[in-house]
Amino acid sequence: MQIPLIESTQHSAISAALDAAINNKTKPLGSLGMLEQLARQCGLIQQSTKPLLIKPAILVFAGDHGVVEENISAFPQSVTWQMVENFLAGGAAINVFAKQNGIRLQVVDAGVNHDFGHRDGLMNKKLGSGTGNFAKQPAMTMAQCEQAMQHGADLVAALNGNVVGFGEMGIGNTTAAAAIMHKLTAIPLADCVGAGTGLSMSGVLHKQHVIAAAAAHHHSVSSPLEVLATFGGFEIAMMVGSMLEAARLRKVVLIDGFICTSAILVAAKLQPAVLDYCVFTHCSDESGHKAMLAYLNATPLLNLGLRLGEGTGCALAYPLLQSSVNFLCDMATFESAQVSEKSE
Amino acid sequence: MQIPLIESTQHSAISAALDAAINNKTKPLGSLGMLEQLARQCGLIQQSTKPLLIKPAILVFAGDHGVVEENISAFPQSVTWQMVENFLAGGAAINVFAKQNGIRLQVVDAGVNHDFGHRDGLMNKKLGSGTGNFAKQPAMTMAQCEQAMQHGADLVAALNGNVVGFGEMGIGNTTAAAAIMHKLTAIPLADCVGAGTGLSMSGVLHKQHVIAAAAAHHHSVSSPLEVLATFGGFEIAMMVGSMLEAARLRKVVLIDGFICTSAILVAAKLQPAVLDYCVFTHCSDESGHKAMLAYLNATPLLNLGLRLGEGTGCALAYPLLQSSVNFLCDMATFESAQVSEKSE
Repeated sequence: MQIPLIESTQHSAISAALDAAINNKTKPLGSLGMLEQLARQCGLIQQSTKPLLIKPAILVFAGDHGVVEENISAFPQSVTWQMVENFLAGGAAINVFAKQNGIRLQVVDAGVNHDFGHRDGLMNKKLGSGTGNFAKQPAMTMAQCEQAMQHGADLVAALNGNVVGFGEMGIGNTTAAAAIMHKLTAIPLADCVGAGTGLSMSGVLHKQHVIAAAAAHHHSVSSPLEVLATFGGFEIAMMVGSMLEAARLRKVVLIDGFICTSAILVAAKLQPAVLDYCVFTHCSDESGHKAMLAYLNATPLLNLGLRLGEGTGCALAYPLLQSSVNFLCDMATFESAQVSEKSE
Repeated sequence: MQIPLIESTQHSAISAALDAAINNKTKPLGSLGMLEQLARQCGLIQQSTKPLLIKPAILVFAGDHGVVEENISAFPQSVTWQMVENFLAGGAAINVFAKQNGIRLQVVDAGVNHDFGHRDGLMNKKLGSGTGNFAKQPAMTMAQCEQAMQHGADLVAALNGNVVGFGEMGIGNTTAAAAIMHKLTAIPLADCVGAGTGLSMSGVLHKQHVIAAAAAHHHSVSSPLEVLATFGGFEIAMMVGSMLEAARLRKVVLIDGFICTSAILVAAKLQPAVLDYCVFTHCSDESGHKAMLAYLNATPLLNLGLRLGEGTGCALAYPLLQSSVNFLCDMATFESAQVSEKSE
């Protein structure tokens, strides 16, 4: 995949008009807090003082991870395909929240260790039956990694809306995301590794040891794409390609939790301006997410102690994004409502 | 108004069944964080493992405050009635957010210094043209205070839904709320007083001085109802009565920002179990709100730097409440979806 050039939305001619539009609404200056920053961001992305959110979608990428051989997860690998079945049957958390908030859900098999056959509602972009075990070998070849990114980009290009969120399912993928975080931020490994789906303290220490040994094994790996191919997952690589393409197409990009954020970390290393398009929907309870968000200078919208993945943070935060755009488009101004302005 | 006896929802027979229902959903244990606690709370209130939210409403109470004579607000008093007109015309933030999230809005004139005449959409419960200036006299008589509480209770009793949020509009009412907070919590006044709609630092110090002098003037006032009558507002007293009645009727009670929280503080001093019914929708940027929430042991859902009032926090957080109930009612269980459980 050719890495697209992402244009920054900053220093835009519309910036002053957006500030004026926000400040003229019938409310004390700044009193809608983060919603004002969100409205401004959407306006900058769409180059409009009346931004509109059209046909929001969440892509959920599922993939398996060879590193589960190292016993780094509280759940067996089979849960990946079982949860994909749950997505297709409409029984998972992301189904419930996406339906509630009018968000279209697309489930993608990026490389699950299971033969689903042809299934309505499942997009088959399978790149293998799970990645290689990065404790012993690179998770992917560079060709697989680039193919995954291209698949992701193609999926986003086919969407007809202007807001896209990302989610994932993959037993073992907090291990992959922690390794990516450690390699690309140089934050100490102990601060990157968490309990995932529910490891005990000794389980977390073992997971940390597995990643440390793998980092030593692959010590020469350093570029963002090499790190992604060596430690990532098919679903993470697809998210990286998707996010870059979404920003190129000037869509609003919704970032979910720990794994999703590791993908935007890779994307931002390739094209820093991609961050101008990102709404960080929540701070996960997964240890390491807070530090990764801080590294990216990102302020999350929600802080509810979620640690589920699947794009659930994107779906839950979407009404707030809608509110930010709605206040900007629909509230009266001091002038139109004939409300007196500040007297002090 | 007779203070109703509020029954605690704790120690309920359904508690264990609710925990089991939440934990059997297809997600790692506890991974929906605060949404799990919310679902549990709704289940306890409704005594059901399948709680339903029906016809949510937000009551917005508007009232004027005699203490504005002391020059404690950044906006002139006329903004109270002008904003009521804005509510009636659909141009305020609360109109936009309530409409977005399917919440019925009721605007109540609790005692605005303006003659609206008969107006569609405005409930006339006017108890005067604003309260007395508490720097010199009690804001209300005890009879007015009890009448206000009764009006509030009657309005809630007439609602046909089972979720009710509260909002307010009243130039000067952060001054009233800060005085109530200081008197009922004994938190130092400097930690209770904030900028309201946008006072300068010297304005905040003056506001603090006005409240300190008033507290000294009314030094013998100590019971919750006396504090409410002496320092409160018609809109605050109506909220107190409304909240108690809502809890008595086992409705979910949505608490907005600083002023709304000062009302539930009074209500909780009268009937502590009222807190079992409350969802604290957000932590306001108004200085003092965080400490008041901590005093009430309340964990707010949102932390977006809002400081607008009107019930906007209730409207913005409502989709999260809906999500909590939806996951409990609609997600598959490990058994129904045939997903493997934790292996560790």
